[in-house]
Amino acid sequence: MRGWIVDQESYIPPVQLGDVMRALGVGEVVESMTDEYPVGMLVTGMTGWQEYAVVGPDEMLQPVPPGLPETSALSACGLTGLTAYFGLFEVGKPKPGDTVLVSGAAGATGSVAGQLARLTGCRVVGTAGTTDKCRWLMDDLGFDSAINYKEEPLPRAVAKACPGGVDVFFDNVGGEVLEVALDNLKVGARVVLCGGISGYNDVEQAPGPRNLINLVVKSARMEGFIVTKYLAKFAEAGIYLAKALADGAIKDRVQIVDGLKRAPEALNMLFTGGNTGKLLVSVSPAA
Amino acid sequence: MRGWIVDQESYIPPVQLGDVMRALGVGEVVESMTDEYPVGMLVTGMTGWQEYAVVGPDEMLQPVPPGLPETSALSACGLTGLTAYFGLFEVGKPKPGDTVLVSGAAGATGSVAGQLARLTGCRVVGTAGTTDKCRWLMDDLGFDSAINYKEEPLPRAVAKACPGGVDVFFDNVGGEVLEVALDNLKVGARVVLCGGISGYNDVEQAPGPRNLINLVVKSARMEGFIVTKYLAKFAEAGIYLAKALADGAIKDRVQIVDGLKRAPEALNMLFTGGNTGKLLVSVSPAA
Repeated sequence: MRGWIVDQESYIPPVQLGDVMRALGVGEVVESMTDEYPVGMLVTGMTGWQEYAVVGPDEMLQPVPPGLPETSALSACGLTGLTAYFGLFEVGKPKPGDTVLVSGAAGATGSVAGQLARLTGCRVVGTAGTTDKCRWLMDDLGFDSAINYKEEPLPRAVAKACPGGVDVFFDNVGGEVLEVALDNLKVGARVVLCGGISGYNDVEQAPGPRNLINLVVKSARMEGFIVTKYLAKFAEAGIYLAKALADGAIKDRVQIVDGLKRAPEALNMLFTGGNTGKLLVSVSPAA
Repeated sequence: MRGWIVDQESYIPPVQLGDVMRALGVGEVVESMTDEYPVGMLVTGMTGWQEYAVVGPDEMLQPVPPGLPETSALSACGLTGLTAYFGLFEVGKPKPGDTVLVSGAAGATGSVAGQLARLTGCRVVGTAGTTDKCRWLMDDLGFDSAINYKEEPLPRAVAKACPGGVDVFFDNVGGEVLEVALDNLKVGARVVLCGGISGYNDVEQAPGPRNLINLVVKSARMEGFIVTKYLAKFAEAGIYLAKALADGAIKDRVQIVDGLKRAPEALNMLFTGGNTGKLLVSVSPAA
């Protein structure tokens, strides 16, 4: 969302001034012109930041599967979970026994990516910005280690938590943690560039990692992706995630900010580290 | 070689003070303890910077194939050519019609990589530092376009020479040209990190590209490699290169600096842009 409100070319056009802010949402059908979406059905799609949405075929409306908590349709089983799933499995290609480092690990995507790596039999290390988040990662989500980057210098902490080096780095943050991860790659390592939130608010682009030569020396790969690249496999991945969630193999955590007026404040919480797990805004008076 | 004389961990141990400088060489067997390498045979291997080398099994001695110019055993058909071959084909994965950008294109590796891309049916653009080099790339090697980065600002020149964007960037240089290439990637592009000569002499590491987010937005990949990763396919690649050279499908250019004493000067020519094609030092009194 932060990228969509910058006026520059990206993978989709920027949101224009005066337009409804683009966003995925979940809601109840209150009026319908088609039997496919009867009144009362719970659906998810590109509803935008608004109390009521008039939704056509372009907004990719999907029914929320029966039994799935509606918030999970936006988090572990929504585009967030799919992003973690494809980034980890298709780009990171983890193998059992691999050491997987996740930055922004207490965020919506990072927390799912880390849990999926654990289910694959990897050793999972996460970075986060508070002691509570680190405790949640280790005690509730089964991470093997968690680093509070605001308390420990990252170079020492990463080297200590990943003594044999990093096979897969799942990066949501960029900046310093990316540079430190590059200094700790194993031969043949994969860096998954999922996001770079540390730089999204920069007015001038900050300098990049000074140590890309590690990619050469370690025959390592760094690859970015937009989740829609894997559209053809969304259904398969959605079933995997919903089953893992229902079985308790992965856990989902959401934090809800109440009221459309607080949506800008909520967006900003992602930059101050104010949220854990998936951050949602409840915009409808009925919610 | 420049990397090998820095005292830090890399893919092979650094050369120690007082040791013979590590280098591939070509020479004639003048004394032998095995029938496998009879006196008079032309061989190539890890001979080092020295007039006479005592060579054992560790130095990976190979006969120069009959008919192959001895200098080609160190350039287009040596580790240089293999580096271009595996970097382009295994990492870059070019397809016919792709736009391939090569930095340091008039160097030993870049000139072979560009020619192999042309043979694959790609549109090939190279960067180099003199008008003569650019002319050689276009007139003799069949590059579609060549950019003199000392005369034209790279952002404009690359955008103009690659109007639809870059599918494969084969990078020998790093620094500015890497940043510019990242700004011109097509969706699904591959960046082959082969080297980063612009940074090898830096005492402090220079800042890296500020625009890695392009890898995310364009679902693009950046991957480094050390050629020995593909050891199992060396024979197959060597045959391909020797045949392409014999057929005139690719051209080989070498520049020979005469005398062991001038070896340090020769190494420095790689950083000042003083050479075109493969730079060799003739160290033996017999040469």
